[in-house]
Amino acid sequence: MTYCVAMRLQEGLVFASDSRTNAGVDHIATFRKLNVFAQAGERVLVLQSAGNLATTQSVLSLLRQRCQEEKLNLMNVGSLYDAATLVGNTVREVIARDGGQQQSGINFSCNLLLGGQIHGQPHRLFHIYPEGNFIEASDDTPYFQIGESKYGKPIIDRVLAHDTPLDQAMQCALISLDSTLRSNLSVGMPLDVMRYRRDSFDATDQHRISEDDPDFHRLRQAWSHGLLELFAQLPPQKWTHSK
Amino acid sequence: MTYCVAMRLQEGLVFASDSRTNAGVDHIATFRKLNVFAQAGERVLVLQSAGNLATTQSVLSLLRQRCQEEKLNLMNVGSLYDAATLVGNTVREVIARDGGQQQSGINFSCNLLLGGQIHGQPHRLFHIYPEGNFIEASDDTPYFQIGESKYGKPIIDRVLAHDTPLDQAMQCALISLDSTLRSNLSVGMPLDVMRYRRDSFDATDQHRISEDDPDFHRLRQAWSHGLLELFAQLPPQKWTHSK
Repeated sequence: MTYCVAMRLQEGLVFASDSRTNAGVDHIATFRKLNVFAQAGERVLVLQSAGNLATTQSVLSLLRQRCQEEKLNLMNVGSLYDAATLVGNTVREVIARDGGQQQSGINFSCNLLLGGQIHGQPHRLFHIYPEGNFIEASDDTPYFQIGESKYGKPIIDRVLAHDTPLDQAMQCALISLDSTLRSNLSVGMPLDVMRYRRDSFDATDQHRISEDDPDFHRLRQAWSHGLLELFAQLPPQKWTHSK
Repeated sequence: MTYCVAMRLQEGLVFASDSRTNAGVDHIATFRKLNVFAQAGERVLVLQSAGNLATTQSVLSLLRQRCQEEKLNLMNVGSLYDAATLVGNTVREVIARDGGQQQSGINFSCNLLLGGQIHGQPHRLFHIYPEGNFIEASDDTPYFQIGESKYGKPIIDRVLAHDTPLDQAMQCALISLDSTLRSNLSVGMPLDVMRYRRDSFDATDQHRISEDDPDFHRLRQAWSHGLLELFAQLPPQKWTHSK
């Protein structure tokens, strides 16, 4: 499995992904799931992927290759909406190519998050389904998750709103990843994260957070200790001491 | 869906269940998922259920009915292990009866948690699978969840150990339910909870927590406010203010 989260906020976009892939517990590997298509000053597109690794890698390879070969590609489409359509079509193409051949019982599907901005237009975020169709984040629902999304959802639901500052939103994404890392073995370090500030058209604010990253370690410790402290101070239920 | 959690601790057992069932979003109802078979001073058995409601109701009805009709039943089996076997057999029986008739695509399966104590024996906790086989909680893994388990798992993983006091374990179960209630519509109030103190053979420490329960409301508020406060104080990532 995998866990990726992306947020579309007033100030810009936040992306965070783990890097573990697995085909059974004895076939675990590390692959980057956060991919950037950017031209400084003009466009920044970020793609995160979850699902069948052969499918997501093919989709990414085709999208990259076609930036050279095809007339219409991610580096020149006129809008984020058109970019999502292009990605969706490529997902359909790969799943039709690979998925229809054998009755193998393999799940060839994948989910993708596409966020970014093209000059002169607002920043946008899409969730692209295995069927190639997609939905867009709104002020009411400013984030999407793909992969092992449930463990890390409660903290986002509590903390995140459309006007959450970019740095706080990134902390929220990291805490959400921390909860998922602790409870699910199929999600693993290192993490790939990126912030995109609206209208910056700058894709350089990317980081890879490794297992021994002191800041992330400090964050996890502070969260863990704080939770235990908070838990110990919770008001008792009246019936708690009835027996 | 449903969410039930049960814990087997040094001091005894903790059970907590929501009460929502749904067959699609337009068919939502309230059913109790925490069921007690008890004879004061001799045995306390608690069954929690998740899955196909027709299946779980039939399993419970048959188990109750057979306490009158059959020689070997939950009120006289010699051990918790034998009780789990009996429940597992009943699950197999009902699924074989109801599930094999039509190619309807319906999932007839269910999961059950069985915890309790029989006089002269230790208190034990089992997770019974749809296939009728089961696993037992241990000091290393003192809890089981069934239903929508992922949202509420991180807090249990952080807080719970075999030697956690009974009252604290109940608070943990309630927080776990709170996280699940917030993030998943298929889990809903009221909650049914029960504590069983080891060697008490007393099944009376049960409570139904309704939507307007002031203590539970206070607990949720304190947790929510505390989390937001804790979140606001987290140490920043060094690269957080690099841009």
